[in-house]
Amino acid sequence: MHAVELFIQDLAVIMLIAGVVTVVFNRFKQPVVLGYIVAGVIIGPHTPPFNLIQDDKTVHILSELGVIFLLFSLGLEFSLKKLAKVGATAVVAAVAEIMLMIWIGYEIGIYFGWKTMDAVFLGAMLAVSSTTIIVKALNELGMKNEKFAQIIFGILIVEDILAIGMIALLSGIATSGSVDSGEVVNTVGKLLLFMVVSLVVGILIVPRLLNYVARFKSNEMLLVTVLGILFGFCLLVMKLEYSVALGAFLVGAVMAESRQIHRIERIIESIRDMFSAIFFVAIGLLFDPNVLAKYWLPITVITFAVVFGKLFSCGIGTFLAGHGGRTPMRVGMGLAQIGEFSFIIAALGVSLKVTSDFLYPIVVAVSAVTALLTPYLIKAADPLSAKAVELVPKKISGIFGMYASWLESLQPQGEKAEISKIIRRILLQVLVNIALVVAIFLCGAFFVDGIGGWLSAWIGDEQVRKAVIWGGALVLSLPFLIATYRKLQALSMLLAEVGVKPEFAGAYTSGVRRVISEVIPVMSILGIMLLIFVLSASILPPLNLLAFVLLGAAGLLWLLWSKLVKLHSRLQIALFETLDEKPEDSH
Amino acid sequence: MHAVELFIQDLAVIMLIAGVVTVVFNRFKQPVVLGYIVAGVIIGPHTPPFNLIQDDKTVHILSELGVIFLLFSLGLEFSLKKLAKVGATAVVAAVAEIMLMIWIGYEIGIYFGWKTMDAVFLGAMLAVSSTTIIVKALNELGMKNEKFAQIIFGILIVEDILAIGMIALLSGIATSGSVDSGEVVNTVGKLLLFMVVSLVVGILIVPRLLNYVARFKSNEMLLVTVLGILFGFCLLVMKLEYSVALGAFLVGAVMAESRQIHRIERIIESIRDMFSAIFFVAIGLLFDPNVLAKYWLPITVITFAVVFGKLFSCGIGTFLAGHGGRTPMRVGMGLAQIGEFSFIIAALGVSLKVTSDFLYPIVVAVSAVTALLTPYLIKAADPLSAKAVELVPKKISGIFGMYASWLESLQPQGEKAEISKIIRRILLQVLVNIALVVAIFLCGAFFVDGIGGWLSAWIGDEQVRKAVIWGGALVLSLPFLIATYRKLQALSMLLAEVGVKPEFAGAYTSGVRRVISEVIPVMSILGIMLLIFVLSASILPPLNLLAFVLLGAAGLLWLLWSKLVKLHSRLQIALFETLDEKPEDSH
Repeated sequence: MHAVELFIQDLAVIMLIAGVVTVVFNRFKQPVVLGYIVAGVIIGPHTPPFNLIQDDKTVHILSELGVIFLLFSLGLEFSLKKLAKVGATAVVAAVAEIMLMIWIGYEIGIYFGWKTMDAVFLGAMLAVSSTTIIVKALNELGMKNEKFAQIIFGILIVEDILAIGMIALLSGIATSGSVDSGEVVNTVGKLLLFMVVSLVVGILIVPRLLNYVARFKSNEMLLVTVLGILFGFCLLVMKLEYSVALGAFLVGAVMAESRQIHRIERIIESIRDMFSAIFFVAIGLLFDPNVLAKYWLPITVITFAVVFGKLFSCGIGTFLAGHGGRTPMRVGMGLAQIGEFSFIIAALGVSLKVTSDFLYPIVVAVSAVTALLTPYLIKAADPLSAKAVELVPKKISGIFGMYASWLESLQPQGEKAEISKIIRRILLQVLVNIALVVAIFLCGAFFVDGIGGWLSAWIGDEQVRKAVIWGGALVLSLPFLIATYRKLQALSMLLAEVGVKPEFAGAYTSGVRRVISEVIPVMSILGIMLLIFVLSASILPPLNLLAFVLLGAAGLLWLLWSKLVKLHSRLQIALFETLDEKPEDSH
Repeated sequence: MHAVELFIQDLAVIMLIAGVVTVVFNRFKQPVVLGYIVAGVIIGPHTPPFNLIQDDKTVHILSELGVIFLLFSLGLEFSLKKLAKVGATAVVAAVAEIMLMIWIGYEIGIYFGWKTMDAVFLGAMLAVSSTTIIVKALNELGMKNEKFAQIIFGILIVEDILAIGMIALLSGIATSGSVDSGEVVNTVGKLLLFMVVSLVVGILIVPRLLNYVARFKSNEMLLVTVLGILFGFCLLVMKLEYSVALGAFLVGAVMAESRQIHRIERIIESIRDMFSAIFFVAIGLLFDPNVLAKYWLPITVITFAVVFGKLFSCGIGTFLAGHGGRTPMRVGMGLAQIGEFSFIIAALGVSLKVTSDFLYPIVVAVSAVTALLTPYLIKAADPLSAKAVELVPKKISGIFGMYASWLESLQPQGEKAEISKIIRRILLQVLVNIALVVAIFLCGAFFVDGIGGWLSAWIGDEQVRKAVIWGGALVLSLPFLIATYRKLQALSMLLAEVGVKPEFAGAYTSGVRRVISEVIPVMSILGIMLLIFVLSASILPPLNLLAFVLLGAAGLLWLLWSKLVKLHSRLQIALFETLDEKPEDSH
């Protein structure tokens, strides 16, 4: 048969069986996602009648598109502003959960005598809860707007970010084959740098572009533009050897800041549904029920580990972040399952060929069981809380109460709170600027061959070429370096004002303050330059040329100082404008 | 590189360049479709920088999905009711246009010394105008609701149906390699049969199924169901060796009768836009600008032929159907271009490997030029009409006026009009019933091996198996045969009443009437049975068994007559209910 016919046959089989099974699942109020997976198992090669899929390769490609659209949608729902609001609780609980679950998963893997890499991937798979299943369960229970639900959504956002980082990290570990702490720091550092730069540059460019295209009032053009940006960035991310999942999520997060967000969500919905259906069916295709019989013990152990590990870690995390009463139990119960990220990580392990075949069906089985349990666990949370309160002795519950008041007392009050807010804001701005500068030099180093080859037509000497590239990067960085310097100056003036009190420094007060406010920025800039020298070692020109370049930059700085300051402030204003924009109503 | 990465790279390149080019085209008010094609030319292998597409096969598969979704959308906009309203004008004009254009295209091909098959395909490509381009042009000129626009849309609907038939026919001709008139009749007959049966059975089942699924209020489930039905039917159509384009269009036409039509249109919109963009880009990929230079003469000739041929045929057709004044010129100018169907037919020729390589770029070039001309032609229609009226001598315009009044006089009036309406209605019902009966026996013949193999476990003798299958088909057909008989009876009573006037038949009137009303239905049923015997020759049991089967059927008929009548009328009511349903508002 013709290739196209084979493929249409596959699509027909997938969609027909998925349609029937999901209708049945929905009829009995079970998650649609489970329906897709069951449909995949039915279609798949491990169950009768036989393997109904002919063109494995194309189905696999389409299921990858499913991952891209799933994570793009998650990114669209993600919001820097929302994250800032949920704040500490979500971070504390999510970090507690992920660290505990990775450790538990790893230990379980080792206990059953699996390969180290299997154990590592198992840990990662157990770390992240399933947004899809939680949203569905809370919707059906009518609890979506309660306080604990808001905390759960906050935790899910932080989990998404950490999971994206974990996927990038796992790819690195899987390729290098070992967990080298230096390398981990290096990988995580580069990843964070890439994410910050992508978000800043993306938020500066993409929403403006989308606003321009949206003016044409054509859904089709907006769709093509969105898909162009999405796949274009995914391509860039792939070339940098990060996962496309990361790219899709970042593009989504950037577009979430656009005024067109509601229109984008609406036009992308069907495409995501179509490809994510194929993705979940493809998971079912890989599921071998025989593994279920063979690995019933690990599946049972892991299911218990997921439920109790997540209940414990999320509950404790929520409590430590200052929430009492029934909230910790409810949050813990709500998050006690694994889902789509586990499948993505499992798929990653398979495609990198570092995990064993049995891991996939185990994770699918655990996900199915925990997904089915979720609504019942949430419903059981309140009675269990009440019982727990009865059982815990008065003294211990007194200690809990003291912890809450102690936590309250830690919060800075009045003027202090204002100052610490300003300091945090300045530090964030400085960090973003440094990230941009570092990114410019890393790009220079990354593209040195390309640019150098192009320059060689004009400049013969390799060292001079290096000097030109390095100098170019320096010139591009100048606005950000100046901004860093000015922000650090402001910060150190503030610190000097607050830190050096006339009561102690007496007559020296203003002198000490001036020294501090002058020394800190200069020292910091020198530190930053040192960092740049190290990072750009491969394109650093020899000393004499370097001196020449630095001299030139100093001259430029002197000539254009005020222009560069203006340029940076315009960029900054543009960024904050976009972040403060309200989305348009869907129309 | 990994297969998935290659593919994402392709998608990124397609969407990025398509995005940029379409924004530019929209800026200068040119059709988006042309933008896609130009993007494809830029990406393609025939233009610098180089071939940017790595995974030809997957892009080709996705562009086939584009054809499916394009025709599915066309089907959704198609409506049996609308077609009935536009009536004669559209049919006359569309048939005139298609026949003339096929002939012109064929002659041009022969004139330039091309292969017969190239000439045939060229004719087919020139026959159908472009809905996309017309809708866009009329929208921009603000003429969408004028009378001539309604006629144009009617003609487009009829063209779509004829084009679908043409595609099926061309596939047959291309495979058999010759144009055998007997075979054409056979092919067209089977095609019509297939279309009627699909529509009737589809309208009975599909809207009910969609209503059931829509109750779950989940766009995702509705989407999966729609895609399942769409691809499932496309698969069936492919197995019957018709084109998937036909299948997609029929599914769309069936779903157009559903109450969920607006929701379906909305959830399918983005998916269609995505894949149709890929389809049009894929057309551009095949476009070789060198052909343009080499074949400038045919391109010019064909462009003129399209504009003047369509203007002439559609104008004359519209006039012959009774529209005077400026309408014929406007209709002709509006339809003077070729578009998406031409590409689909061109793609068919390429995939069947019967057309030459140069045909594709020629058609793309002609489509581009005529698309660009369309808005100007529509604007030029009124001045040209006025000038034509001036130029035509009074005598001839008098003849035109006489034609119009003569046409009016042909319309049946009063009681006669009522009767001819009833007769037409009964004949349509009889034809549908006969089509269903014929389809049941053809299905029996088609699946005889499968059913026979399955039956062989119980029944040893091959002849007995045949008798069982043939008898089964007869039993299934009984409700439709009875209905046909009853409808024919009613028809012949009516005819006897109208045709046999007491003035002529005198005392014999009632006798003659009774003979007519008894004889016609019996003779007709005997004729139908003969047709069935011929069509089901391959599964016809030997005479003795046949007699046995017929006797059994007669017994069944006697026993269950009233039940079978009831069953059929319930089916008929269900069908008309669905056709009369109003679509729900999109929500």
